[in-house]
Amino acid sequence: MDAATPLSPTARSTVRRGAHRARTDRAELHAVLDAGLVGHLGIVLGDSPVVLPTGYGRHGDTLYLHGSTGAASMRAAGSGAPVCFTVTHVDGVVYARSAFHHSMNYRCAVVHGVARPVTDPAERLLGLQALTEHLAPGSWAATRQPDRKELAATTLLALDLTEASVKVRTGPPGDDDRDLPEAGAADPVWAGVLPVRTVFGEPEPCPLLPPATATPPRVRERALSPRG
Amino acid sequence: MDAATPLSPTARSTVRRGAHRARTDRAELHAVLDAGLVGHLGIVLGDSPVVLPTGYGRHGDTLYLHGSTGAASMRAAGSGAPVCFTVTHVDGVVYARSAFHHSMNYRCAVVHGVARPVTDPAERLLGLQALTEHLAPGSWAATRQPDRKELAATTLLALDLTEASVKVRTGPPGDDDRDLPEAGAADPVWAGVLPVRTVFGEPEPCPLLPPATATPPRVRERALSPRG
Repeated sequence: MDAATPLSPTARSTVRRGAHRARTDRAELHAVLDAGLVGHLGIVLGDSPVVLPTGYGRHGDTLYLHGSTGAASMRAAGSGAPVCFTVTHVDGVVYARSAFHHSMNYRCAVVHGVARPVTDPAERLLGLQALTEHLAPGSWAATRQPDRKELAATTLLALDLTEASVKVRTGPPGDDDRDLPEAGAADPVWAGVLPVRTVFGEPEPCPLLPPATATPPRVRERALSPRG
Repeated sequence: MDAATPLSPTARSTVRRGAHRARTDRAELHAVLDAGLVGHLGIVLGDSPVVLPTGYGRHGDTLYLHGSTGAASMRAAGSGAPVCFTVTHVDGVVYARSAFHHSMNYRCAVVHGVARPVTDPAERLLGLQALTEHLAPGSWAATRQPDRKELAATTLLALDLTEASVKVRTGPPGDDDRDLPEAGAADPVWAGVLPVRTVFGEPEPCPLLPPATATPPRVRERALSPRG
């Protein structure tokens, strides 16, 4: 699948509510996933849903998730049962002239599928590299890569981006006509959007780092970059 | 339950992995929930988990969720089957000296339970007020409250904060001794934390607002406030 292949929703991944907010562009799915740091993985344990924050990385149309081999959630996620993985960005609080029309601006990607445990050693390294680079660009090459014992302690799962949906809200509030002021009249109620942004702060060096250690470009430049 | 009542985990809500990161203080649960804008609601549809971003509000030890009466996810969430609701804050990217020890600083609250559809008119208003005030403090009093038709179109669910867990990671990387430099030696690998923060931007007035309309304190002061 290249980025031009439209998302092909199944019944499960079809956006029903607010269908005008659905996006069907695969590049937009990639963009929403790439802009996130953490997703929320949903699994079923017993008859109960469990939703846990989970790091991830993307390689083409495969999403990689990882966790400890000891984690019950990882075992359940890799058992062949369906999972759901959702990445959400809140972009703004939408202030309306009525409580009912208050809303949020957001970008959200929801992926459904069965997660495949990755056992091939080369794909395991590729997946862990994607995860590390997603969390901390430049870190894979700059730091010690996993040894045999660390690899043995890590469950890596692959989730195809075949069945996915993207939903986006942008723009001002959608107030009822009855709540708008007459032309030329003052508006008794402020309405608009308060933008919400995720930003990086000043890097905090590890206390075990010798005092003169410079912050490398991979961290320094990221700290200065605007975030989605 | 007051804020001093410790969280009483069941098997489902006991933090197993990284148990040293578990918090058992109810006030900490409230703080993590109160600092968020959006949570992720997990339900089971058919045999598949579905995870959707969801606004919420808190009143004491009750969490209120709402959605359209037409939404399949709201119908499923209010059907008496178990749900899971998770709120996560990413506080920092943890850069380590090995790929394996890269991590995130975060605060996460996970609530398990059965969501109760709220039908009592007074509690419905109370819940919707909590939701509105959580999203947009001051908006409930400043804007038009829901009318009968809007109320009829809204499903309101209540989720008790009885079965919940909180997990928090803070601080520098937990590197292996073998990856640390000898005393006095330079460190070949930068390690530390890149803080991640959620901030508000400059308010964007609705285009339908008369040009001279002032931004009220409830929005202006929030735009200037630091966020968790």
